[in-house]
Amino acid sequence: MSADSVLPSWRPGATRDAITRFLAAARSVPREERVACFDNDGTLWCERPNYVQYEFFVDALRRRAAADASLGDRPEFAAVLGGDAAEIGALGLDRVALALAGLFEGLTPDAFAAEARSFMDTATHSLGRAMRTMVYRPMLELLDALRALDFTVAVSTGGGREFVRAVSETIYGTPAELVVGTGIDYDVVRDEGRVGLRRAARIRGDVNEGAAKVTNIQSQLGRRPILAAGNSAGDGEMLEWANRGPGPHLALLVDHDDATREYAYASRSETLAESEAITTTATRRDWTIVSMANDWATVFA
Amino acid sequence: MSADSVLPSWRPGATRDAITRFLAAARSVPREERVACFDNDGTLWCERPNYVQYEFFVDALRRRAAADASLGDRPEFAAVLGGDAAEIGALGLDRVALALAGLFEGLTPDAFAAEARSFMDTATHSLGRAMRTMVYRPMLELLDALRALDFTVAVSTGGGREFVRAVSETIYGTPAELVVGTGIDYDVVRDEGRVGLRRAARIRGDVNEGAAKVTNIQSQLGRRPILAAGNSAGDGEMLEWANRGPGPHLALLVDHDDATREYAYASRSETLAESEAITTTATRRDWTIVSMANDWATVFA
Repeated sequence: MSADSVLPSWRPGATRDAITRFLAAARSVPREERVACFDNDGTLWCERPNYVQYEFFVDALRRRAAADASLGDRPEFAAVLGGDAAEIGALGLDRVALALAGLFEGLTPDAFAAEARSFMDTATHSLGRAMRTMVYRPMLELLDALRALDFTVAVSTGGGREFVRAVSETIYGTPAELVVGTGIDYDVVRDEGRVGLRRAARIRGDVNEGAAKVTNIQSQLGRRPILAAGNSAGDGEMLEWANRGPGPHLALLVDHDDATREYAYASRSETLAESEAITTTATRRDWTIVSMANDWATVFA
Repeated sequence: MSADSVLPSWRPGATRDAITRFLAAARSVPREERVACFDNDGTLWCERPNYVQYEFFVDALRRRAAADASLGDRPEFAAVLGGDAAEIGALGLDRVALALAGLFEGLTPDAFAAEARSFMDTATHSLGRAMRTMVYRPMLELLDALRALDFTVAVSTGGGREFVRAVSETIYGTPAELVVGTGIDYDVVRDEGRVGLRRAARIRGDVNEGAAKVTNIQSQLGRRPILAAGNSAGDGEMLEWANRGPGPHLALLVDHDDATREYAYASRSETLAESEAITTTATRRDWTIVSMANDWATVFA
């Protein structure tokens, strides 16, 4: 198959060549070692101006606050409802995110998934498109090309595992068990005499960023990826872990350099013990840079 | 397809009828809800006279002690090498198991898996058969029948997740990501300038028994099973969780009542807040009892 037919939204060039070389070489890899892991925010779907999950949380907060105005008294919620970025920063994003996740405390997994799906079915991005279409078409083509080669294609998100799972099958063709992420904890309860689950207001395990992406993928999936894709410092360890070994391997770094069609912003690699532009790190570490402006003929699905 | 052709090692009767009724009804269930979870020890493979993983640990300890006699000075290892069940009980099985797991501290995931596979390729069970064949043929047929209906078929073991993963593809056709179990933690290291993993001597998360089977399955797989199979009290919550809802569901409890072909022993359901024979619990809770003596025409693979 030619790259034009398998990866039609990728422009010809060194990046597409690196991908097609990897795909060709992967045919010689044992099937159980054909594993690929993709970061989600900024790698598979747009993360600006806000994370999709944050928009979901804010939407849920607004609806709940409309029914119960006292919610606005809580400082985290007041800052979010007021769009007060400085106050959110002062409180700390982790604290705000945990407060927002707590809005769903007590829900069954199914009830939470239904709320997430309803949001993705109806929300609009500030660029004017349906939120569910803010997914990168070239990456969807790559997911399909990998699956056509019998790859196990996983998503490893720094965001909420349960939120991404609710929509991953529809949006990416990825079943729940292949979504790794920051997990919520559950309480085991009895309802109507049967065992059931309720969401707790607690993170389960580690926030899925940096080195935790490596240990979480190993723990949940039990296999090392030979292709990894990311766009920020929190993906660094995952990219390095994939980008090794005697066999075929590929680390892709999406560079958001397209202010016309999406956004232009530089991620800095603080967690890699050097503060430098992530693209500098990428070059030094032999990652393949995907320039949104140059390598993608079409951006969105 | 008739039950004779799909489940040839199952004898005709109420148990096989319950399974075939479930399989027929599952055709109406949405594909993403077709999830089945099987306990491992005593449900998919033989757990007597010792857990397979315990035999693996003892074998590894013997080989290491042959090279380094000082290992025998450690009380946990002295008790194991001496086959001193009373002393193992006095020390506590958890402590002994953690000490044995610690034999593999510092190994890469691949090196550990290679050692587990080598054991399973060569070990012999005390009944005289190859260890890798101490798997229940009727259950393998059920796994295949479920996969033929596009079920996601997972294993949820109280034992070591990494040990079962090393052999699950070969023995059960189950990839690593569909094995839930008691996990080992990893340290992230740099070797030859690349990110790598080393086994730590720490359990990661909860021991996968009882209610933890439910939260661990939800966390790792993200989906609730509608069929669950087990054989002991530690499977109770998982069975109850699967055995609910308006749609088709089935909870199977393997009763080891076959002293002629395998073993006869009764599990007691202490963790269900009542001390009673697990078969009594099964009847009260509407689980389907699988009598090894009566329902299985052939036991082993």
